[in-house]
Amino acid sequence: MAWRFALLLVPASATDARTDFRETFTEVDPLAPGLSVGDLAAQRGDGVFESIGVIGGHAQEVEAHLARLEHSAELCELPRPHLAQWRQAVELAVTRAGSGEAVIKLILSRGVEHGSGPTAWVTVADAADFAAARTSGVRVATLDRGFASDVPARAPWLLLGAKTLSYAVNMAAIREAKRRGADDAVFVTTDGYVLEAPTASVVVRRGTTFVTPEPHAGILHGTTQRSLFGFLQSEGYETAYEPIPVADLLAAEAAWLLSSVRLAAPITAVDGRAIPHDPAVTSTLNDYLLGRRD
Amino acid sequence: MAWRFALLLVPASATDARTDFRETFTEVDPLAPGLSVGDLAAQRGDGVFESIGVIGGHAQEVEAHLARLEHSAELCELPRPHLAQWRQAVELAVTRAGSGEAVIKLILSRGVEHGSGPTAWVTVADAADFAAARTSGVRVATLDRGFASDVPARAPWLLLGAKTLSYAVNMAAIREAKRRGADDAVFVTTDGYVLEAPTASVVVRRGTTFVTPEPHAGILHGTTQRSLFGFLQSEGYETAYEPIPVADLLAAEAAWLLSSVRLAAPITAVDGRAIPHDPAVTSTLNDYLLGRRD
Repeated sequence: MAWRFALLLVPASATDARTDFRETFTEVDPLAPGLSVGDLAAQRGDGVFESIGVIGGHAQEVEAHLARLEHSAELCELPRPHLAQWRQAVELAVTRAGSGEAVIKLILSRGVEHGSGPTAWVTVADAADFAAARTSGVRVATLDRGFASDVPARAPWLLLGAKTLSYAVNMAAIREAKRRGADDAVFVTTDGYVLEAPTASVVVRRGTTFVTPEPHAGILHGTTQRSLFGFLQSEGYETAYEPIPVADLLAAEAAWLLSSVRLAAPITAVDGRAIPHDPAVTSTLNDYLLGRRD
Repeated sequence: MAWRFALLLVPASATDARTDFRETFTEVDPLAPGLSVGDLAAQRGDGVFESIGVIGGHAQEVEAHLARLEHSAELCELPRPHLAQWRQAVELAVTRAGSGEAVIKLILSRGVEHGSGPTAWVTVADAADFAAARTSGVRVATLDRGFASDVPARAPWLLLGAKTLSYAVNMAAIREAKRRGADDAVFVTTDGYVLEAPTASVVVRRGTTFVTPEPHAGILHGTTQRSLFGFLQSEGYETAYEPIPVADLLAAEAAWLLSSVRLAAPITAVDGRAIPHDPAVTSTLNDYLLGRRD
């Protein structure tokens, strides 16, 4: 995994944070100093982001990612991103992504503390090799996310539907899962419902229906999951947004973690107990996800 | 409020993240580019910090802040901070803090993604003028933190005792409190106990006893609260770490928010209902806190 490229988006005005960014960019070395130490992204994780998968020179589902960036910014009361400029930045980033798999990150920060406007940047890095995760799968550990199912709707200040830069807990959960001998975590509510993985959506198969938790249940609405549900519907499967008790994950006919760069990783074990794995279906899902989707 | 100074701490070795930092620093312009866009502090709020109050050229309670930085780093499985170097950085920072009130921030990040070691920096900025908050007080809004009292002990991956850089929710809570016509928030558990403010401890007076929630209740153990409890004991008051039901805050004889830079801000109203305010006691507390404490 290696950095390839980074781009700072230049705001139109230092005095009006609500003004659109100008359609200009500054290329920076991803490893060289590019941000102020006073940037609120670095001081308080105060910003939002997106990770876009790039495959063979094509950035997947850019519009869905931009829409979610805009939604996250709204939940965090950040200046509204100027989508035309972000789109242009992604187009430029793609030209530096190489011919293999890569990841483009979009970051919108509240800007420098005591400053006057947001900071925004885009990076490109080579993707890690996820071939083993896509075929052999991942073992997950369920970890309590600390809140009950009824909390997200009544406490919007917990930002549970926003993809913020405050991911320390997500990273700690992955470390805890590894300590338990698993490869990844699946967050669950205190009342026993499946939420999401720290950086992925959870989809469970029940017969011919693919199920994921409702987007307002305190999770991010996965761009890869949404895209996959569209594909599954076109293939004649049913899809549903429904609460998933942890028991249903343990008893699943099959389950996957879905994310923009790793794509579909079949879950092979939950808390040390094996669950069925259907390599043919997984292969169909990843063939779709690896193709040009938009 | 203005930036004064920033310092990057230089690691001893690019290949061994566990090695102590070298006792060398690089001064950087706080507003100029100093951090890589790939730094995990800026990408994922993945690091820890401290804010130290500086009054008249003296940094308060440096050892208590360094101890908490070390504790937060341990909870986040970050490389152990080399305290001798941080101490030296604080000494240098103090010389740039001016003669008024200032804030020194210490930040330890997991470093650049795909890199090999932590990033660390120190900033100095003039403190805001908190005279009004210290005398006229603050109105608070109670906000559900989303978890019940029993969660922090059983879910350490939620990092509830670590002062991490993932503060987006803390900042959102302050915005929500302002929307409700208050000045600050007080987080409470789903089962109705007082936790802390987004950037301060809560202390309630019951007769001659000053009470704050237990440090393992899912809060940070406040350095200013600890210092003040020592002072109160020396003055013949009793102090206690005890659960505080929200009803006790509403019925308090007096209550304060305590933090390193704003110091003691009396709470004058909770969710729009006035609570008693004892200006003489508040003045005694701030006289102590403004003095040289160590």
